[in-house]
Amino acid sequence: MPEPVVVEPNFFEVIGTQRAMRRLKTDPVPEAYIKRIIWAATRAPSGGNRQGWRWLVVTDAAKKKQIQEWYEEAWTRYTASGYGNARTDLPPEEAKSNDAVLKSANYLAAHLHEAPVLIFACALTGPGGDITAGSSIYPAVQNLMLAARALGLGTALTTVHRAHQDDVRKLLGIPETVETAALIPVGWPKGKFGTGLRRPVEDVTYWDAWGAKRQ
Amino acid sequence: MPEPVVVEPNFFEVIGTQRAMRRLKTDPVPEAYIKRIIWAATRAPSGGNRQGWRWLVVTDAAKKKQIQEWYEEAWTRYTASGYGNARTDLPPEEAKSNDAVLKSANYLAAHLHEAPVLIFACALTGPGGDITAGSSIYPAVQNLMLAARALGLGTALTTVHRAHQDDVRKLLGIPETVETAALIPVGWPKGKFGTGLRRPVEDVTYWDAWGAKRQ
Repeated sequence: MPEPVVVEPNFFEVIGTQRAMRRLKTDPVPEAYIKRIIWAATRAPSGGNRQGWRWLVVTDAAKKKQIQEWYEEAWTRYTASGYGNARTDLPPEEAKSNDAVLKSANYLAAHLHEAPVLIFACALTGPGGDITAGSSIYPAVQNLMLAARALGLGTALTTVHRAHQDDVRKLLGIPETVETAALIPVGWPKGKFGTGLRRPVEDVTYWDAWGAKRQ
Repeated sequence: MPEPVVVEPNFFEVIGTQRAMRRLKTDPVPEAYIKRIIWAATRAPSGGNRQGWRWLVVTDAAKKKQIQEWYEEAWTRYTASGYGNARTDLPPEEAKSNDAVLKSANYLAAHLHEAPVLIFACALTGPGGDITAGSSIYPAVQNLMLAARALGLGTALTTVHRAHQDDVRKLLGIPETVETAALIPVGWPKGKFGTGLRRPVEDVTYWDAWGAKRQ
């Protein structure tokens, strides 16, 4: 286990201010920090504690550029087909937030290779399965992103590369039986951490029956 | 957002000592704590920030007992079919840990209804999809379990109830289009928090190519 590299970040402050940071500086990230956030990932639960994960860290400039080109190609197709378009069904505050997310996602697609580190969260579980297929990898991804936040590093959980998953597998030598569950750019953020826009707890919590809210 | 109820838990201590706690006391959990851990859940990322989740909190004794009976029935079938059987392919330390997990999982199946609170993490995404179907719910589940740990509450991520998902839906009025991605028992732990057994970071981290390890 790598040594801690920062002092005493408060848990609830980290939880409350971890949000996608898509504008990242090109400055390098020390290897100890990378190992520290992967250490955090490995503390997460997995079914039967099988730990069926691998963390593929990409810092090679040519590989990052190739991945960015695939990513941007897929992202451009998604947005052209309407994904993330300005939504008219949202209240003003959410619509504004939605637009900001779309802009930063566009930025990420164009600048992905500038992130000093890309991490692929690889699941050894094979393809198929229902929603629970993700239950042994995304808790670890979240731990990684929270630990990054605690260290002052920005991240975002992306899956756009999966449109080119076979290409990515060939580029990095990943076996066909391995699912790249997420691509997480990691770097020092250009912007500031802050609280993301979320609905109130009371709106998304039911008590003893579906739809039964409490204030 | 509910008020904080504990002081300054250290982030890396929480991350490092959050593990499945399957033996729980029957003592009640104050509603403020439940709301606090659900608040933490809602801080997690979700695709397009859609927040397509609902948190169904079950404290009703009769409903908990019915859910426990379905859970134990499915768990008994799984273990009878070989799931979790003593594994001979593991190094001694892991085999011992594996046996301990199996025992505590058996305990949970028999005592699930004694947990003061059961929380269903409900995903509004509908059935189907690939592994990424879980990418917008399990990060939130992990946030919830980490926050519980920070407050001294035990949890475990379980999916065994899904063998009876239609029964659970009928009991609680959950629409057919909603996936119950996890059932999380919540309560004050009988045992102590501690570090789970995990493989070293170096064993599960590759650099720039699959299989390329660094010390």
